[in-house]
Amino acid sequence: MKTIYLIGIGPGDPDALTLAAIKAMRRVDVFFVLEKEGEGKDSLIRFRREILERHASDRPYRIATGASPKRDRESADYAGAVEDWRKRRTQVIADLIDTEMADGEIGGFLLWGDPALYDGTLQNLHDLIADGRDDVTFEVFPGITCVQALTARHKVTLNRVGESITITTGRQIETGDPAAVTNSVVMLDSRDAFRRLADQPDMDIFWGGDVGTPDEVLIAGPLGDVAERISRTIQDQRARKGWVMDTYLLRRRAPKGG
Amino acid sequence: MKTIYLIGIGPGDPDALTLAAIKAMRRVDVFFVLEKEGEGKDSLIRFRREILERHASDRPYRIATGASPKRDRESADYAGAVEDWRKRRTQVIADLIDTEMADGEIGGFLLWGDPALYDGTLQNLHDLIADGRDDVTFEVFPGITCVQALTARHKVTLNRVGESITITTGRQIETGDPAAVTNSVVMLDSRDAFRRLADQPDMDIFWGGDVGTPDEVLIAGPLGDVAERISRTIQDQRARKGWVMDTYLLRRRAPKGG
Ligand SMILES: C[S@@+](CC[C@H](N)C(=O)[O-])C[C@H]1O[C@@H](n2cnc3c(N)ncnc32)[C@H](O)[C@@H]1O
Ligand SMILES: C[S@@+](CC[C@H](N)C(=O)[O-])C[C@H]1O[C@@H](n2cnc3c(N)ncnc32)[C@H](O)[C@@H]1O
Repeated sequence: MKTIYLIGIGPGDPDALTLAAIKAMRRVDVFFVLEKEGEGKDSLIRFRREILERHASDRPYRIATGASPKRDRESADYAGAVEDWRKRRTQVIADLIDTEMADGEIGGFLLWGDPALYDGTLQNLHDLIADGRDDVTFEVFPGITCVQALTARHKVTLNRVGESITITTGRQIETGDPAAVTNSVVMLDSRDAFRRLADQPDMDIFWGGDVGTPDEVLIAGPLGDVAERISRTIQDQRARKGWVMDTYLLRRRAPKGG
Repeated sequence: MKTIYLIGIGPGDPDALTLAAIKAMRRVDVFFVLEKEGEGKDSLIRFRREILERHASDRPYRIATGASPKRDRESADYAGAVEDWRKRRTQVIADLIDTEMADGEIGGFLLWGDPALYDGTLQNLHDLIADGRDDVTFEVFPGITCVQALTARHKVTLNRVGESITITTGRQIETGDPAAVTNSVVMLDSRDAFRRLADQPDMDIFWGGDVGTPDEVLIAGPLGDVAERISRTIQDQRARKGWVMDTYLLRRRAPKGG
């Protein structure tokens, strides 16, 4: 049997790891890193190496890198492109397991935030096992999500008493009904989807870029008042370091039901 | 100035604490515990004491207990009863701060799961400060939620690719439109609200009682097939130890949009 640990490492602060995650890391024989092309020196990879240096055991461990497949973002067939990307990613992982792990060993993925929140690796492992790999098993170790970092830094609750909250994507905000948004956390937004809701009444935003990291920026206020400033901040961060990861909570002051 | 730390301690496993939460605990001078009547020997309080013994520093710390006000659950005016309870709870906290903390000290609350997820303490502190207490400030330290423990133990993703998820209450499931539920995590359900959706087509449930604790029970499957078994398990646990804390993910196999 080969065992894979999917270990949540939190959203960018080495102290966000749980003791359980650190104990799991210390049992891992080989860590798998899927590198995106041109991202070799990327700070996400740097962060994973920092985590390893800080928390891994004195026991020797190996690092094995695979090439993260690219998703076809030009394709008109969104679902098809995602499906194809998912299959190729599962194959890269299967190859790593075949070539880099001995029977009885433990392989580990250090996953940003929590492995259950918008991360494909857990599904890749289900697909791999469904494909007939009965020599592979896996375990999941939770990590603090960027959503939790966002609410903690803004000191807001995720759920107001008795109300629901939706965690969604920029794409859904771009295509959905603006009037239906009352309490939503938005992730994976690369096109400032919040601007579409800037004229919604009584809407507050709690926005965070690179929350929990040394580059953290926080902006909060009535959406109509601060949307411009958030867009400028995103542009500035992109200009300065090439990217920004942002998440935000949209909340109506006078809620229409939960 | 008096500083309050709201520290998330995860859903029942001392190893679910983050390093940041442990470091925060070690700076606390006085821990506040709000005890519910008749709950003195309750295992939640026991767990908090275990956390303290395991993780607090050698530096001396104090524990101060207050009486957690009761919410009027019989009242026809749900919102009014919640509002009243919230005010009385803020007052209990204000009294603790007045009588148990010296200027310059740090007070701490060890909060179940994450302080932002269905926990009133953060709002109590906002209310207290809005009331004019400019000698009080607070910080939030995230913790692993019961939702993350649930998805990790069932090895399911919270969000399927491109889809949204809603985190909601048993009460909302009881009163909402069953057809509108496609991806929902349900908390605070004391009346088996999932039974109301048992005839919804293609609905799977991933249910967990006392997830991440030694009493953990997990049940998953098509909702229509396992609803009875879950209800029986809840009854059994209540009969055996007086209570069970349960959370579940409801997910339609063929999603109707996110
Ligand atoms: C592929 S998802 C992974 C999320 C991760 N599994 C988690 O639990 O936070 C990446 C998205 O998460 C959000 N994100 C991740 N880290 C963040 C951070 N430190 N600050 C703000 N947003 C972040 C951004 O919306 C980004 O597009
Ligand atoms: C007042 S809320 C607090 C939630 C907490 N702040 C968190 O982040 O998990 C209490 C509800 O959380 C859920 N819950 C808390 N701990 C749980 C556990 N270990 N297993 C299952 N559900 C749990 C139950 O639905 C319970 O009614």
